Amino acid sequence: MNLTQFVAAPLNPAERILLGPGPSPVSHRVLRALAAPTIGHLDPQYIAIMDETCEFLRQVFRTRNPLTFPVSGTGMAGMECIATNLIEPGDEVIVCVKGVFGVRMKEVMERCGATVHTIEATWGEVFTLEQIAAALDRHPCAKLLGIVHAETSTGAHQPLAGVADLVHARGALLAVDTVTSLGGHDVRVDEWGIDACYSGTQKCLSCPPGLAPVTFGERALSRMDARKTKPQSWYLDVSMLRKYYVGGSGGRFYHHTAPINMTYALREALAIVLEEGLDKRIVRHEQMHLRLRKGLEALGLGYVPKHSLHTLNCIHIPAGADDAGVRRRLLEEYGIEIGAGLGPMAGKAWRIGLMGHGSSVRNVDLVLTALREVLGRA
Amino acid sequence: MNLTQFVAAPLNPAERILLGPGPSPVSHRVLRALAAPTIGHLDPQYIAIMDETCEFLRQVFRTRNPLTFPVSGTGMAGMECIATNLIEPGDEVIVCVKGVFGVRMKEVMERCGATVHTIEATWGEVFTLEQIAAALDRHPCAKLLGIVHAETSTGAHQPLAGVADLVHARGALLAVDTVTSLGGHDVRVDEWGIDACYSGTQKCLSCPPGLAPVTFGERALSRMDARKTKPQSWYLDVSMLRKYYVGGSGGRFYHHTAPINMTYALREALAIVLEEGLDKRIVRHEQMHLRLRKGLEALGLGYVPKHSLHTLNCIHIPAGADDAGVRRRLLEEYGIEIGAGLGPMAGKAWRIGLMGHGSSVRNVDLVLTALREVLGRA
Repeated sequence: MNLTQFVAAPLNPAERILLGPGPSPVSHRVLRALAAPTIGHLDPQYIAIMDETCEFLRQVFRTRNPLTFPVSGTGMAGMECIATNLIEPGDEVIVCVKGVFGVRMKEVMERCGATVHTIEATWGEVFTLEQIAAALDRHPCAKLLGIVHAETSTGAHQPLAGVADLVHARGALLAVDTVTSLGGHDVRVDEWGIDACYSGTQKCLSCPPGLAPVTFGERALSRMDARKTKPQSWYLDVSMLRKYYVGGSGGRFYHHTAPINMTYALREALAIVLEEGLDKRIVRHEQMHLRLRKGLEALGLGYVPKHSLHTLNCIHIPAGADDAGVRRRLLEEYGIEIGAGLGPMAGKAWRIGLMGHGSSVRNVDLVLTALREVLGRA
Repeated sequence: MNLTQFVAAPLNPAERILLGPGPSPVSHRVLRALAAPTIGHLDPQYIAIMDETCEFLRQVFRTRNPLTFPVSGTGMAGMECIATNLIEPGDEVIVCVKGVFGVRMKEVMERCGATVHTIEATWGEVFTLEQIAAALDRHPCAKLLGIVHAETSTGAHQPLAGVADLVHARGALLAVDTVTSLGGHDVRVDEWGIDACYSGTQKCLSCPPGLAPVTFGERALSRMDARKTKPQSWYLDVSMLRKYYVGGSGGRFYHHTAPINMTYALREALAIVLEEGLDKRIVRHEQMHLRLRKGLEALGLGYVPKHSLHTLNCIHIPAGADDAGVRRRLLEEYGIEIGAGLGPMAGKAWRIGLMGHGSSVRNVDLVLTALREVLGRA
């Protein structure tokens, strides 16, 4: 035996209880699926698994859109996929900004060549239908309105019912970020008239990060078919991706090598969602949020948003508490990860996620117990 | 028990012997690493794993470039990352086209706003230094020359020594596609003067698809720092990605949620490469290629390229053989996947990959035995 030979240390990350803004805890069942044998992306077995994954995604998005698939990237690649395919240089669009992910949507759409008009709400607030209607009236040439359903930076839950009617009446498209809501809150793509929607796998679906579920409705397809220019991203060009994910008379066409094992994991994570039942799952997220909220308020901890998500609890850091020190103690002593504040909320807020597999009585009670101890509120 | 409740069928893909153009066979050790518990992307444990992964990548790329990391997408996202960061609208570039992946590089760079000049070689051929020098002389304003080291569509192996001197003498950058060579052929980024290089995980590294290793040298960094416009892709913008992957005085900045479990798998796959020893691994790929070549030629099967890759063997389909039928029999009777011809080679060539974990005596002998049987050449 050659003792000078390089041998890497074993890879054994200590398990964490992931109660931050994502990734959320991944169940053993999903990790097992992730580790199934890798097969080819054009193997008939894989095409069948992918087709089933897309069908499961339709059910979770509550849509019949044929063009529903996981983009081969993380959530932000989903946002970029929507933007690069629906926007042509010079297009006017409206983005509703009430947190970091609205800011990012603006940035991504500007890089696609859009002239972006924003409406802004105080961080933690949401938009009313009147505000959205007024923005549409101010910018009658806007071809798309983008809005974040679940603003991960503030924990605010944006109601969406009625928004599409306003947007469609002006001939525009509605694009929605559901990264932190899909699988934990109701996301009714067809009923709400959403034209394009993206999400991530690592939040309420409790799958590892690496894929971005997207869905495009008929209006979005028409817009893409009428493009005068090619989308600036080849990797995210839906006109080619649909030949692989949806196919056609000529069969399936290779575009890029799909992330095989991540698709296994997403398929299994979606199966778990559908086996639990989407409605029951949404109720569970609500109940766990209420249980946590009651406990946090008993500890004197207040929420940042008026309309809080059930999936992400953004709370004010209490006066005198040491932001980084508290989070470090939670991580080191309890193995619990919670999230820091993002952007202007840095140092001012904590974000406690109760997403998917992580949204459970035991996690709620554990994080409350740990916070009580660490904050010295016995 | 409610028998009407939805229960998904178990996910148990039949194992395949992956001898196509990728994905290549993934070892059980890598699959186990893939299934390690998901942790947060800002967890100190994860930062350490990622740092080690980047260091392993530097060794495999044979580079000291600090900016060496896996892009959160498949190989084509790596190509797009190089293009979107190094090209500004209006830039002239030269792309050397000798197969599908050269064509794609042209397309991706055009979408970044480049004026692309191409030089073309017959599919299966490679470029000489004289041809490259002549192209650079014809287009003295070219700011970048892009070339594919291992053309996956034809199996041709492009020599790279000396190319950078020609390119740098004209003030241009050298960008190289090493998707099908990294970890199977020598890729000497620093010695060969490559300024930007991308690869994929699912070829000679024998990791599942989903990440694209990239490396950028000093000249490339200077080019990016001097940009007048932002890269059109936010997701792939290296000016932000480097704050997460390399960090700086202010620590690590969140850009997007990294694909945690895929990073585990890549780390383990790279550890395997380094434990074997990169030089020994490259020799193994050569030996297995020669063993296969001898067997194929004994069966009367000839190679498409003169200078064949060791990692991918592109052979002419013999007269009278049923392309799809042979591949289907290999898959169904032997569980062996080989690749069809791509683009103009469709129906004319087969591609037999011997990559990473798949490049072994038993696979060579098995595929030769199976081909002999299926082609009726007993």
